[in-house]
Amino acid sequence: MARTVPFHGIIAYPITPLTPTGEVDLAKLKSLLDRLLASGVHGIAPLGSAGILPYLSDAEREAVAETTVKHVAGRVPTLVGVSALTTERAVHHARYAERVGATAVMLIPMSYWKLTEDEVFRHYRAVADAITIPVMAYNNPATGGVDMRPEFLARLLEIPNVTMVKESAGDVGRMQKLVRLAGDDVAFFNGSNPLALAAFAAGARGWCTAAPNLIPQLTLDLYAAVTKGDLTAARSLYYRQMPLLEFLVAGGLPRTVAAGLELAGFDPGPLRPPLMPLPDVERERLRDILRTLLPN
Amino acid sequence: MARTVPFHGIIAYPITPLTPTGEVDLAKLKSLLDRLLASGVHGIAPLGSAGILPYLSDAEREAVAETTVKHVAGRVPTLVGVSALTTERAVHHARYAERVGATAVMLIPMSYWKLTEDEVFRHYRAVADAITIPVMAYNNPATGGVDMRPEFLARLLEIPNVTMVKESAGDVGRMQKLVRLAGDDVAFFNGSNPLALAAFAAGARGWCTAAPNLIPQLTLDLYAAVTKGDLTAARSLYYRQMPLLEFLVAGGLPRTVAAGLELAGFDPGPLRPPLMPLPDVERERLRDILRTLLPN
Amino acid sequence: MARTVPFHGIIAYPITPLTPTGEVDLAKLKSLLDRLLASGVHGIAPLGSAGILPYLSDAEREAVAETTVKHVAGRVPTLVGVSALTTERAVHHARYAERVGATAVMLIPMSYWKLTEDEVFRHYRAVADAITIPVMAYNNPATGGVDMRPEFLARLLEIPNVTMVKESAGDVGRMQKLVRLAGDDVAFFNGSNPLALAAFAAGARGWCTAAPNLIPQLTLDLYAAVTKGDLTAARSLYYRQMPLLEFLVAGGLPRTVAAGLELAGFDPGPLRPPLMPLPDVERERLRDILRTLLPN
Amino acid sequence: MARTVPFHGIIAYPITPLTPTGEVDLAKLKSLLDRLLASGVHGIAPLGSAGILPYLSDAEREAVAETTVKHVAGRVPTLVGVSALTTERAVHHARYAERVGATAVMLIPMSYWKLTEDEVFRHYRAVADAITIPVMAYNNPATGGVDMRPEFLARLLEIPNVTMVKESAGDVGRMQKLVRLAGDDVAFFNGSNPLALAAFAAGARGWCTAAPNLIPQLTLDLYAAVTKGDLTAARSLYYRQMPLLEFLVAGGLPRTVAAGLELAGFDPGPLRPPLMPLPDVERERLRDILRTLLPN
Repeated sequence: MARTVPFHGIIAYPITPLTPTGEVDLAKLKSLLDRLLASGVHGIAPLGSAGILPYLSDAEREAVAETTVKHVAGRVPTLVGVSALTTERAVHHARYAERVGATAVMLIPMSYWKLTEDEVFRHYRAVADAITIPVMAYNNPATGGVDMRPEFLARLLEIPNVTMVKESAGDVGRMQKLVRLAGDDVAFFNGSNPLALAAFAAGARGWCTAAPNLIPQLTLDLYAAVTKGDLTAARSLYYRQMPLLEFLVAGGLPRTVAAGLELAGFDPGPLRPPLMPLPDVERERLRDILRTLLPN
Repeated sequence: MARTVPFHGIIAYPITPLTPTGEVDLAKLKSLLDRLLASGVHGIAPLGSAGILPYLSDAEREAVAETTVKHVAGRVPTLVGVSALTTERAVHHARYAERVGATAVMLIPMSYWKLTEDEVFRHYRAVADAITIPVMAYNNPATGGVDMRPEFLARLLEIPNVTMVKESAGDVGRMQKLVRLAGDDVAFFNGSNPLALAAFAAGARGWCTAAPNLIPQLTLDLYAAVTKGDLTAARSLYYRQMPLLEFLVAGGLPRTVAAGLELAGFDPGPLRPPLMPLPDVERERLRDILRTLLPN
Repeated sequence: MARTVPFHGIIAYPITPLTPTGEVDLAKLKSLLDRLLASGVHGIAPLGSAGILPYLSDAEREAVAETTVKHVAGRVPTLVGVSALTTERAVHHARYAERVGATAVMLIPMSYWKLTEDEVFRHYRAVADAITIPVMAYNNPATGGVDMRPEFLARLLEIPNVTMVKESAGDVGRMQKLVRLAGDDVAFFNGSNPLALAAFAAGARGWCTAAPNLIPQLTLDLYAAVTKGDLTAARSLYYRQMPLLEFLVAGGLPRTVAAGLELAGFDPGPLRPPLMPLPDVERERLRDILRTLLPN
Repeated sequence: MARTVPFHGIIAYPITPLTPTGEVDLAKLKSLLDRLLASGVHGIAPLGSAGILPYLSDAEREAVAETTVKHVAGRVPTLVGVSALTTERAVHHARYAERVGATAVMLIPMSYWKLTEDEVFRHYRAVADAITIPVMAYNNPATGGVDMRPEFLARLLEIPNVTMVKESAGDVGRMQKLVRLAGDDVAFFNGSNPLALAAFAAGARGWCTAAPNLIPQLTLDLYAAVTKGDLTAARSLYYRQMPLLEFLVAGGLPRTVAAGLELAGFDPGPLRPPLMPLPDVERERLRDILRTLLPN
């Protein structure tokens, strides 16, 4: 049976812009989507970690999901984050995403109480069973608090419409083990920016990243070098963007991407407390890094 | 300036019972509160981790807070959990708790994106400034995802109405450091069940625990031995209940306390998915442990 | 069968003094032993971590073992460290210790390659079988590189002359688990200075410590308070010496104890490279801490 | 100033064969060296972790160093491990290695007491200053117990004849950071077998590995694919040998390589206790893995 994997290449994660008073700014979101689409990225993923999914109300999440999918309008596939602490809410948001036309949904198991693998499995199955579009299983223990082993991810892929894995644990060995366990053609995507090169070398089909908010062309060029099998060019492109990739992760995506957009002339509005803007000294470092990367 | 510390001894954390269809069961909550009050515990803390705070909707949280405070009716002080991912929601719930008459609120910084200490500090100050009742700062990196160092906890205690710390990191060294940094009379409470004895030895004023749902008398006896300075009796009482304390933590409080209540003849209803009931084999172990501890 | 446990209370770990040219200084070692014996400690343990056992040649180790045992001359029991990377060398040193009259030997499994539990068990059995005096199993993953779980330590105690455990993992929960697994009367000793109070509360028979090189009376007073079951006095004594205990561990025993001895007028000679003397700024902090603790 | 980097490609780490009675077997060592040289590896590194350096006496180490260098006789460069707990012994072995004609020495900081960066730096400088041949700094916290950050490794490379780094921390991000800090042409080598592909992608000049004891051709083919810049071929070659690479590391090199050699018809003799032979069930798994990789 062919498994549906509607993504490849650079999957861009827009942040969620806010108005000066802290409401979700849908007009600015559309403008950010236009920038991303114009850059040529291969997919758009609203409501990811960069999109501050967990900090939004249900109504805000629905507005962002619907606005994004409608605005992208099929030009590239869309991947909507639908995670929630309770299974009931995750199912709700997955159904909503399908209803408004998302290509697929992304689901990270969020935890307060540590979940057993059985609980995580049932959570995924409940969400997957509630929809007909594909599900990307997202592993990011540093944010979600649950660490899914490669063995468990391989098991999740046995659920018919769980067809993709996004691995953000920050260890390329995890990705390699997934390939060994789930087969050479397993559809895994890299979610750890500093591992962009290593993950592609290991066979990642794509790179789920907020970096295109700031440097879309460099991320696309790296993917192109990899698809050509040109290791030397890929390495050179990677090391050029590496300082930015490390900076984005170290400072937290919502803070660093917002600061970078502002430096690039696009004001994304304030952050939602407790998240605060990037401190000035780090903003200056970001300015220096961007200056070496961007055409002026 | 005298600092308000309205708690000491055994502060009991009720779970949040659900109806067979998964709604919050306020009638059963009152019944559980009656059991706890009858046992003689020194305080009641709804909406803690055991009370599955993060898995409840805003309306459910408000209902549990109001019902608990009104039902306890001042017989012992109440400590209402008010944590939320966003500062705005935490402030909302803190104000609600004060309005319905809570003695104090408990606040754990929850994270998706790792928070800086500055962000956590502002979060605490915003909540503390919004109310006039005392705040207990709650450190539990395993659930909340934020680890507050003793140095930082000492800094939080400089906010006027942040008067108490609950330390659940599971390391008695943390508590000792807090005493060294914040002074001999710092009002710290132990939130790590297996450290009950070590924390009292280190000077904890009380023990925040869900164990009284199952073994209230043993927890009270341990506290009494400690207040008498009787180390030998305290040690003996600790080792008697230790297997249960370790079991409760290892299996996750909502699962293990619910199973224990059911074994004791009090049906707390189902868990809220993704949380699932304790597996049968562990339930049998719990039955064996309880059998050695409870009068028949 | 009664198990031989020849230690209790404060077991003092002398450092190994060196001459100005870096040789082992046996005369000064005797002088340090005299200080410790005069202070009233309950046991003497040469060639521990503080005694830089792993940095000494076989001949140096033998000289320190023999000199110590002969000089103590039965006034208190002696516990000689006999650890080595290879089983053959550990057996050699254990036999040597017995031959020169040691009361017991202490054995920490040292690792370069991670050892399996089976390998560690055989290592202990080989050493224990080679001698007739008791063996203290010493767990200190931070130095030795092997972490022995409480379950495994309980198994080691089934070897007839492995009669004692020294637990230095820095987690009082480990000690408590050992008591639960091996019985209330298990002879465990605390090797983690900052856990002195918590370990005694948990039932430790003694405290293996280098602190008596600097503050023998405070360590003896803490033990006396504990044996009287006086928790309040024990807590007060603990917090008084806690800053020093934390300092000793944080800076590494050979460096901090040597600096402290020098500040107290006893010159222990240089350290053996790569170990270097305590940096000046830390030495000043140590001076400040000692000033608050010592009579002048 | 040109820096001397006499290695590239596959640097093979022979194990140290023992006689049936547990002595170092120099005749068998020569035979193993002949196998490795015949396979075409680009360098030979005796007395590495696989060569159980820390478990050998000084005399044994000298015999292995001299025998290896003389037997290789310049056909490929030799890299002799000279690590020791004390600086004095490391200097001794480094001088010995130079005297018998080694091309370079490898030095891992070994620890019992945690070393400060200052202590580690002086240790390296003392050894480097004592010889004129190049030094490879070897980072392997899992065995040596010291973790050298990329920032520190870059600092070590400022010592004139410390010209190479072997990174075995198991994190490709470390290697990438070293490149960013020390420049594109930094001579770093991969010492983590499961990271062979990722490290070459990141720019490693070579792979320090015991795998050629068992599968020399596959390691050489991977390096050839990388030097051609052929990512697709490199990936395919990597995944073919990955199960063996993971197996070697998981079971510990001395055990797994010895078992593999025996399965391949070369009896390396017993292990030195506490190290024990690979358990039978794992030996069968190794047989299965090797069967898929080796011509019959």
